Amino acid sequence: MWGGRFGGGPSAIMQQINASIGVDKRLWRQDIQGSRAHVAMLGKQGIISAEDVAAIDKGLQQIAQEYADGKLVENLALEDIHLHVETRLKEIIGPAAGRLHTARSRNDQVAVDFRLWVKAACDEADAALKALIGALLKRAEEHADTIMPGFTHLQVAQPVTLGHHLMAYVEMLSRDRSRFADAKARMDECPLGAAALAGTSFPIDRQMTAAALGFAKGPTRNSLDSVSDRDFALEYLSATHMTGLHLSRLAEEIIIWASQPYGFITLPDAWSTGSSIMPQKRNPDAAELVRAKAGEFLAAFTRLSVVMKGLPLAYSKDMQDDKSTVFAAFDDLGLCLASMTGMVETLTFNKAKMRAAANSGFSTATDLADWLVRVANVPFREAHEITGKCVKAAEAKGTDLNGLTDAELKAIDARITRAVRDVLSVEASVASRTSFGGTAPANVRAAIAAARARL
Amino acid sequence: MWGGRFGGGPSAIMQQINASIGVDKRLWRQDIQGSRAHVAMLGKQGIISAEDVAAIDKGLQQIAQEYADGKLVENLALEDIHLHVETRLKEIIGPAAGRLHTARSRNDQVAVDFRLWVKAACDEADAALKALIGALLKRAEEHADTIMPGFTHLQVAQPVTLGHHLMAYVEMLSRDRSRFADAKARMDECPLGAAALAGTSFPIDRQMTAAALGFAKGPTRNSLDSVSDRDFALEYLSATHMTGLHLSRLAEEIIIWASQPYGFITLPDAWSTGSSIMPQKRNPDAAELVRAKAGEFLAAFTRLSVVMKGLPLAYSKDMQDDKSTVFAAFDDLGLCLASMTGMVETLTFNKAKMRAAANSGFSTATDLADWLVRVANVPFREAHEITGKCVKAAEAKGTDLNGLTDAELKAIDARITRAVRDVLSVEASVASRTSFGGTAPANVRAAIAAARARL
Amino acid sequence: MWGGRFGGGPSAIMQQINASIGVDKRLWRQDIQGSRAHVAMLGKQGIISAEDVAAIDKGLQQIAQEYADGKLVENLALEDIHLHVETRLKEIIGPAAGRLHTARSRNDQVAVDFRLWVKAACDEADAALKALIGALLKRAEEHADTIMPGFTHLQVAQPVTLGHHLMAYVEMLSRDRSRFADAKARMDECPLGAAALAGTSFPIDRQMTAAALGFAKGPTRNSLDSVSDRDFALEYLSATHMTGLHLSRLAEEIIIWASQPYGFITLPDAWSTGSSIMPQKRNPDAAELVRAKAGEFLAAFTRLSVVMKGLPLAYSKDMQDDKSTVFAAFDDLGLCLASMTGMVETLTFNKAKMRAAANSGFSTATDLADWLVRVANVPFREAHEITGKCVKAAEAKGTDLNGLTDAELKAIDARITRAVRDVLSVEASVASRTSFGGTAPANVRAAIAAARARL
Amino acid sequence: MWGGRFGGGPSAIMQQINASIGVDKRLWRQDIQGSRAHVAMLGKQGIISAEDVAAIDKGLQQIAQEYADGKLVENLALEDIHLHVETRLKEIIGPAAGRLHTARSRNDQVAVDFRLWVKAACDEADAALKALIGALLKRAEEHADTIMPGFTHLQVAQPVTLGHHLMAYVEMLSRDRSRFADAKARMDECPLGAAALAGTSFPIDRQMTAAALGFAKGPTRNSLDSVSDRDFALEYLSATHMTGLHLSRLAEEIIIWASQPYGFITLPDAWSTGSSIMPQKRNPDAAELVRAKAGEFLAAFTRLSVVMKGLPLAYSKDMQDDKSTVFAAFDDLGLCLASMTGMVETLTFNKAKMRAAANSGFSTATDLADWLVRVANVPFREAHEITGKCVKAAEAKGTDLNGLTDAELKAIDARITRAVRDVLSVEASVASRTSFGGTAPANVRAAIAAARARL
Repeated sequence: MWGGRFGGGPSAIMQQINASIGVDKRLWRQDIQGSRAHVAMLGKQGIISAEDVAAIDKGLQQIAQEYADGKLVENLALEDIHLHVETRLKEIIGPAAGRLHTARSRNDQVAVDFRLWVKAACDEADAALKALIGALLKRAEEHADTIMPGFTHLQVAQPVTLGHHLMAYVEMLSRDRSRFADAKARMDECPLGAAALAGTSFPIDRQMTAAALGFAKGPTRNSLDSVSDRDFALEYLSATHMTGLHLSRLAEEIIIWASQPYGFITLPDAWSTGSSIMPQKRNPDAAELVRAKAGEFLAAFTRLSVVMKGLPLAYSKDMQDDKSTVFAAFDDLGLCLASMTGMVETLTFNKAKMRAAANSGFSTATDLADWLVRVANVPFREAHEITGKCVKAAEAKGTDLNGLTDAELKAIDARITRAVRDVLSVEASVASRTSFGGTAPANVRAAIAAARARL
Repeated sequence: MWGGRFGGGPSAIMQQINASIGVDKRLWRQDIQGSRAHVAMLGKQGIISAEDVAAIDKGLQQIAQEYADGKLVENLALEDIHLHVETRLKEIIGPAAGRLHTARSRNDQVAVDFRLWVKAACDEADAALKALIGALLKRAEEHADTIMPGFTHLQVAQPVTLGHHLMAYVEMLSRDRSRFADAKARMDECPLGAAALAGTSFPIDRQMTAAALGFAKGPTRNSLDSVSDRDFALEYLSATHMTGLHLSRLAEEIIIWASQPYGFITLPDAWSTGSSIMPQKRNPDAAELVRAKAGEFLAAFTRLSVVMKGLPLAYSKDMQDDKSTVFAAFDDLGLCLASMTGMVETLTFNKAKMRAAANSGFSTATDLADWLVRVANVPFREAHEITGKCVKAAEAKGTDLNGLTDAELKAIDARITRAVRDVLSVEASVASRTSFGGTAPANVRAAIAAARARL
Repeated sequence: MWGGRFGGGPSAIMQQINASIGVDKRLWRQDIQGSRAHVAMLGKQGIISAEDVAAIDKGLQQIAQEYADGKLVENLALEDIHLHVETRLKEIIGPAAGRLHTARSRNDQVAVDFRLWVKAACDEADAALKALIGALLKRAEEHADTIMPGFTHLQVAQPVTLGHHLMAYVEMLSRDRSRFADAKARMDECPLGAAALAGTSFPIDRQMTAAALGFAKGPTRNSLDSVSDRDFALEYLSATHMTGLHLSRLAEEIIIWASQPYGFITLPDAWSTGSSIMPQKRNPDAAELVRAKAGEFLAAFTRLSVVMKGLPLAYSKDMQDDKSTVFAAFDDLGLCLASMTGMVETLTFNKAKMRAAANSGFSTATDLADWLVRVANVPFREAHEITGKCVKAAEAKGTDLNGLTDAELKAIDARITRAVRDVLSVEASVASRTSFGGTAPANVRAAIAAARARL
Repeated sequence: MWGGRFGGGPSAIMQQINASIGVDKRLWRQDIQGSRAHVAMLGKQGIISAEDVAAIDKGLQQIAQEYADGKLVENLALEDIHLHVETRLKEIIGPAAGRLHTARSRNDQVAVDFRLWVKAACDEADAALKALIGALLKRAEEHADTIMPGFTHLQVAQPVTLGHHLMAYVEMLSRDRSRFADAKARMDECPLGAAALAGTSFPIDRQMTAAALGFAKGPTRNSLDSVSDRDFALEYLSATHMTGLHLSRLAEEIIIWASQPYGFITLPDAWSTGSSIMPQKRNPDAAELVRAKAGEFLAAFTRLSVVMKGLPLAYSKDMQDDKSTVFAAFDDLGLCLASMTGMVETLTFNKAKMRAAANSGFSTATDLADWLVRVANVPFREAHEITGKCVKAAEAKGTDLNGLTDAELKAIDARITRAVRDVLSVEASVASRTSFGGTAPANVRAAIAAARARL
């Protein structure tokens, strides 16, 4: 396989650790696409004859058809997808197949195959993110004025609307989209033609192959970097991981909200699982699995980072582990986004439970403090102190703030009047948060409309 | 400190784990800057009086001067930089200080402080990257035609020029710059005014504060997201880590190149250390420490990622660990970039050692194969096979390819003629790699000029 | 500092990245302890004179006193704690100080210092774990029959006792103790005398220094390994991280249990914090910070792992980053264990809320299924199916299982009789779980007693 | 599948993310083994009849045979290996199959299956480590007095023997063995009988099943912990990762040693690969892949750690990701150890290259300094300084230390005499390092004998 210098073949264990066909067969479309662009260029530049170009191209098309039909036969002795294609090509068209690898190395070949694949993966992430954003926007619109407790530290903080809460995820996922877009733009350079590491003495036209393969920014600028660089894979994994973190937060909320003491949501049967022993169980397994995948995505980024650490230039075989890492993360990102979309679309929000919880925990205490500032011109710090005493009194009495009598309030601070009751309801609280980005229903509707426009 | 609701104070251990002043004091400039913008806006909107605005602003300026003079006194009971500033303000101007926190929470305050800090950190990373790129360009130019072995798998592969090799790092570091730029652009939104989590009922003007603080994209769009989001810190750490990976590769090369069997470079005394026991030692400690920092940067990204995993909205105290993580990574990134710049500027390249190594390992075997393709129209695969046999013969004879006689070469393949010797020198090999991005000296000079123009 | 070979000194940046005194000063006790053992051995072996031994030892004792008094003056030019001590010794006793470093290198010196430190850290972890286990046992005993919902997937599963739940953490923390013990036993070998990397030609007695420094397993067996090995630090970090994971689970439960919809617990003021804007807030900040530290501990392990990856033998400067990593993890582990102990000791369990929740979610459905197996000899799978139908019927009726009439139950399956009601209460359910390790109160009390005996 | 409560089935995406059969089918032996032990116990305790026991056991044996014959048919609708076995059992023996799951849940079932698997994995790691240690001992013995350069900072430090260098890895791998042993001992408790989370009301005998399944420490002590705990998997991964780190260091050395400028070793064809473009290439791919796997192992540990972080008790579905993580790490650990064993057994050491390098870099400078201490009673620090000057002089003269004339040496320090030349050869240096653990050939042979005895 490696030509005339070698005597014996590899040991069985060597072959097993070395062969990548089990993983990189997934690049077959990109590999053939890259080879077709390469051979067309070789022809145009007069490096190989028109007849050879035609024969090779036809052979490659036939292989593409075979592989699409599931006829790729894995052979560890042929190491990787590149040698599988080339060997099959030789079977089909004979020795002319040996001209395909002119002015090319597997080092730049795999770099271009994998970039094409990762670029497409960025597009798929974007499409799946858009679908989830769409689902969130729909539910946010339905619940633009549904009241729920806003939490900090998982303690009831202030009432918010469910629509506003869901829109927070729209913001996160929109940043995720822009990260994938930036990553894609940065990797949009074609390494084909870097050859093994130094470029080539053949008069190749790298602009031509870059254009044929759809690389917007043309060929890469340094041949050593072209075959040593896996930034594009790392950046894809970083964007995947950030998305996974956001999904893990939403998943955690779904799990907590579905827990009986909260009871904010009910998942449909289609997104629940049961127990082999407890007949009553309806578990949010999909949300848990989405949450768990945050581990996988961070691990994928960690893995490739550790692989790349301290590698001298140019290509080293260590880098072969890039593909299994990216492929697995890609599959699970798709599954996570689809699962989350399915759950968001179909879960039921229990508005009564949410509203009741929003009303607990003295959630409008800030409104009382702000009222003191606004109406009685008390400095905020002092208003905060006075309100704290009201909360303490209400807690001692076993009631909420509205449960204190006018007299009890006045006893705490003489400036508190009846009028304060206007701000103590959760509806009033939510309606008052009209600052830009605030939770007032009108704001939320405007935010949804704006997000739709951007989408 | 937290107002009227609390009876007892925190336990000593609680105070110790909870207080962040030891870390977040580093945000004092941003905190005062944010407060000044906030109070100016409160005044313009009529939320507090012009007199109070003037008093608060003057007090804040005084505090800024005190802190610049090193007079910040840490007090665990005051938790964080926000309460340190506010408490000091009260000492200076009295109860009016209590109006500063109107329509604001520490949740949005720390978010804006930290964003301002991280945005500036992106600029500093960019400047330091530019300095290192500048140093690399200078050395690359000096060595645009210095020949060294190009390696793959750390085996001699093909001759390249040192200038070309250094330019590979210019490519990597340029991508790093663009990642910091993308991160900065994405975080360029102002969270101030999100208040605790829900926005506020005060008629604040978030566009005004966003503009005053230099946020190019105006205020953030969702108050819950504004106080829960640490994407900007993660993305800064991700860009830092990617830079660190590139530096670890260059550091590894410096270490290997300085090792006696290579002897490609000599570090000056200013960048070497000795041994407490071995009097002859000159160690590349700085390069080793730069390589080691790849561990820190990945760990920093890991740490904040684990912190954020599965956190329900909105703010949770877990997020407090963001700052020590980012600050340490920032300091060490600066140190690494400065160290690498210093080393690149001052190390000596031993051209004779490099050229000798470039000539080893049958480094021009590919040139022989390519010659067979070009001159004798042999398919590349067959040419590869023939060349492998030549290598085997030369190895058996204990010579390099040029050490085989014409007859010996012809015996392997009759198509090999005298003329092949033109391509077997390392100089000829390097000069022939004129494809775009290839290592030919002329290409390298053009690449340096283009990189200078982009810089 | 590094002797006669060097001309110029280090550059300022070099000094900054290279010096470790800011971190390793923390090893001063171990450094002096190691030096005293070393010099005593040198004397006994006749390598240096008794007078020199006496002078050096006296000088070292004086330095120990000075450092204990806070008089260590950091000097970047003196790099590390080893050179600080040696330089100060020379100031005190003159040139004889130069004999201390005979047959020793900083490579074995730092290895022994750091091992002594990490061994002690294992002991401190053990003591702090014991304190937390003690607190858990006390609360478990108080609540051996307090009923709460047992959750799987955060869905109510079956009733358990609070005591049983707390005892699960006793199991986890006991495993943590045994991991620290194993780590300590494995690192209990003395590297002193490995010298730079190859051993020494001086007739040293490594058994003597190993014994003097309390290393139970004597000297290390291979000098190259002795100075290259940081397994002991990694293993300490691994044990710390596992402990941190367990604490993060308990912290998460505290946070969820303190959330208003659960209301299972109340933290005292001493372990709560308030809000700068929301006067009613009482946040479980300490629990959140403990949860967050899981990020730090994993990051610490990651950092040192990445540092060690691919390092050729023997010592490389990369390894210097081991100490800051371990020290920070040590400090925060101590803080986390102390905080958790404080919280466990002082929080209030709201038994009524817990019992009510235990009664929700058809938590005794398994008891009904088991009853069918036991009493009516129904195969479990069929019993599970029947019970599922009962749950569905109860849910439709808006009641719990006991709310179905006898007739309604019989309609689902004729084998269900009145007697089933004996197993449908949470008390009956809990009491019936008498299998070894089960939640029945008697079991829990026995488990507590057994754990006390092991402690 | 989950009984009577569910109406609709799962969505397609839900099924895809939820089903684990593709991964956990690998547990089939353990699953059947566990079920056989469980059903035997149910019979002995009179919980199910002897006829049912016999039928179930016979059915399970038949399934075991079928699966051994490759007849397991994966069905996503049956989720996992547990339901596959149970469903197949029902096909074979009818409704009595439904009695197998009495007093058991999948939560304790998977815990016991997986523990059995991981325990066996510890044994396999131990056997593979022993094989590698054996290979190292053999080569160390062959090269107990082969001289090579000992490096620190990858700079020539002092001469060592190759045997001594290889024995450093024996130390590391021996610690790895002990970590696997500790992990195995700690996990040697049987969780079967914990049921879903609370134990069971059936009169099961957990000691019996624990003994039947070979758990040395009997049943686990707390049912909640039993189903929530994945410490055993994490600890296995931690031990795997530490082994991987050691292998990455040896791999790095193989790669550097095989690099032409070093030329210390030659790998045989069986452990080399070639290039698709460069006919001369012989690359150490296996060593690179072993080095890369350090990334996978750290990632595996990271992944499961992130999954477990902050999980409330008891079982959550997140934990399902434990198995794919452990299985992949297990496979690659086996491949790495076997590859490294193969390489160590078959590589050729080029003694002349090693000796020449050992003689470079003034490697015996320490011997000169030690000679001054021993013979001329110079304090070591002063001896270090004098030797540094000798090195500087030799470097200026372009020679090694022995190349300085007696007069030149005396000019630097009058106490240096002719006799010093006895210590300046690499052979003398190595032979002098007779301290325990030092590199003298006699020491190395003793160390090999001792290691053999321990093995």
